[in-house]
Amino acid sequence: MTVILAAEPIPEQHVEDLQQQGLTIINLDNVQPEQLATIDIMFGWNKMVGPKILATPNHRLKWIQAASSGVDYLPLATLSEQGIIVSNAKGMHAVPIAQTVMSYILYFTRGIRQSLSSQANKEWRHHEIGRATETLEHRTIMVFGTGQIGHQIAVYAKALGLKTIGINRHGEKRDAFDEILTDQDYQTKLADADFVVNMMPLTPETENFFDTAFFNAMGEGHYFFNLGRGASINETALMAQLNNGHLAGAAIDVAQTEPLPETSPLWTTTNLVITPHISGYIPDIHERLFRIFEQNLPVFLTDGQLAVNQVDLSAGY
Amino acid sequence: MTVILAAEPIPEQHVEDLQQQGLTIINLDNVQPEQLATIDIMFGWNKMVGPKILATPNHRLKWIQAASSGVDYLPLATLSEQGIIVSNAKGMHAVPIAQTVMSYILYFTRGIRQSLSSQANKEWRHHEIGRATETLEHRTIMVFGTGQIGHQIAVYAKALGLKTIGINRHGEKRDAFDEILTDQDYQTKLADADFVVNMMPLTPETENFFDTAFFNAMGEGHYFFNLGRGASINETALMAQLNNGHLAGAAIDVAQTEPLPETSPLWTTTNLVITPHISGYIPDIHERLFRIFEQNLPVFLTDGQLAVNQVDLSAGY
Repeated sequence: MTVILAAEPIPEQHVEDLQQQGLTIINLDNVQPEQLATIDIMFGWNKMVGPKILATPNHRLKWIQAASSGVDYLPLATLSEQGIIVSNAKGMHAVPIAQTVMSYILYFTRGIRQSLSSQANKEWRHHEIGRATETLEHRTIMVFGTGQIGHQIAVYAKALGLKTIGINRHGEKRDAFDEILTDQDYQTKLADADFVVNMMPLTPETENFFDTAFFNAMGEGHYFFNLGRGASINETALMAQLNNGHLAGAAIDVAQTEPLPETSPLWTTTNLVITPHISGYIPDIHERLFRIFEQNLPVFLTDGQLAVNQVDLSAGY
Repeated sequence: MTVILAAEPIPEQHVEDLQQQGLTIINLDNVQPEQLATIDIMFGWNKMVGPKILATPNHRLKWIQAASSGVDYLPLATLSEQGIIVSNAKGMHAVPIAQTVMSYILYFTRGIRQSLSSQANKEWRHHEIGRATETLEHRTIMVFGTGQIGHQIAVYAKALGLKTIGINRHGEKRDAFDEILTDQDYQTKLADADFVVNMMPLTPETENFFDTAFFNAMGEGHYFFNLGRGASINETALMAQLNNGHLAGAAIDVAQTEPLPETSPLWTTTNLVITPHISGYIPDIHERLFRIFEQNLPVFLTDGQLAVNQVDLSAGY
C-alpha cells in the first residue's frame, strides 16, 4: 500500500480518485508519529514533519512533490544520499511572476510612483511628473535566468517594445530573447541594460552574485528587480546604490530573511519597492500542483521514476 | 510670403530649412499685435493669441497644427465658419498612453498597491496580499475608442493574455480586438469586462457618457480607467462607486477641472489613482510634432490641403 502525506492540501475532488487507486492519504494535521515510517510520497514539503521523516529509521519516503519552483530550502544533500527524488512546481509561476516584473517596470516608468506621492499632497504636478515618464521602446531588459519564468518575462517585455537579453550558464538560445549571454560574459552589455532582473535559482554559484561590483557596473539611473532568491543579492550593496542614487529604483519580492523583520533598513530604502514574496502567488495553486503530481504519479507507481519537473539534486534546481 | 506662428517651439534644426523655403517664422514670445493679421499657419495653439487672430479683420490664418490628439479645446465652430483647417497630433501618444493603461492594470492586480501600504508600516503581509493578486489571462478589457491609442492598448492587453473588446460608433473591425461592439450595444458584455478604459474624444455624444447607470452596470470588483477627457465621466458617480466598493479601483489621468483643485474630493477617493494628465507625455514631443507638420506642409503650400491627421471639425476629432 502506497501512502501519501498531504503536506499541502490535495483538492477534494481528487482525493477519492486516489483512494480508488488504492492509495492512502494522510493529511498533515492528522499525521501520527507512528505513521512517519509509512509515508512513500510527500505532496508538498513541511519543514517540521519532513525532517522527522528523513530521520526515522527505515522510513519509506521516495518522492517529494514540492509546491515551489525553487527548492533550495529542501535538505538536498540528505535527499540525494537517501535516494529520494523531487519534482518541483516549475511552470506554474511563470505568468504571475512575469506580470509582476512588468508591474514593477511600469510603476517606475509611467509616473505612478510620483503621482501617488503627489496625490497624497493634493498636488497636480503635471510638468514635473510628465518629464519623469519613460516609454519602453528601444530600452533593454537583461534577465538572469532563462527558464520558464525568465522566458515569460522576455515574451511580455518584447511585446511592450523592450530589447531582451537573457543570461544563462552556457549561453543556450531561447525564444523571445534577442540575445543570450553567459553568466561569465554578460558584463559587456550590463551598463546598457535599463532593467536588470534576477530570476536565477539559489545555488552556491548564484549566492551573493549581485554584489557591489555588479551594481557599480550597472548604468546610472537604471533599475534592478529581484524575484529569484534573497541570498543571491548583497542587500547592503543594493541599499547603498539606491540611497546614493546610482540606481533609480529597485523592487524585491524576496529577502534574505523572510518575513522581513521590522528592523530591516530595506523597508525605508530610497525608491525600493518591497512585495512580500507574492509574485508567484496563484489562487488555485493546489489544483495546479495536483496537475503536475498526477502526471508523475503513474510513472512513479510503475517504476519509481518521474515524468515531468524532476529536480537535479546536485545542481539544486 | 507664408508666415508661421510657432505657438509651440519648432526644433532649432528645422527652422533654417523652413526659412530657406521662403517661410517666415514668428515665435510666440515675439509676436507683435500688427503681425496677427499676417499669420497663415499656427504650429500649436495658444489660447491667448489664437482667439485674437480669429478676431482680427482680414486675418490670413488657414491651418492650425495642434500639438494634441484631442482638439475639443479649439473653437471648432468658429474655425469651421472661417474655413480654417486643423491637423492633430494623433498617433504620437499611442505608446505612452497604452503603457500607462498597462501600468494601472498591473498596479491593481499584482499587489503593488497593498504592498506599498504594507511597506510603509514595515509589515510583511505575505498571505493577505498574495491572496489579493490576480493574473490577466482569461480576463477581459473593454476599450471605448478604437483609434490609434485604443488599438495600441489592445495590442499590449492581448500580449498579456487579456481578451479584448473594442467599442466604436459603427462597430468597425480593428486588429488586436477579439470583438468589436458599438456604443449602442456594448451593454451585453459590460458586466463581464474586468477592466473598462475610456479613450474616446470629447464630443457632445461622449460628454457624461460614463454615468451612474454605466458604473452600476459594471461588474462588482471591476476597474475603470479614464485617459480620454474628464468631461466624459460623471466624477461624482465614479467616486460613489469607489467609496461604496462596487468598483475595486479606478485611475484617471484627466479631470473635468485641470489642474485638479486642492479641494476636490477625488484626491482622497477610495482606491482611486490620479496621474496628472501625464499618460501621453512625450519627451521629444516638438520633434515628433514637427514630423507630422512637415508631411502636411508641402501639400498645404501647393493646394491648401493636408496630407495626414486632418480633423473633421463637425465631428470634433
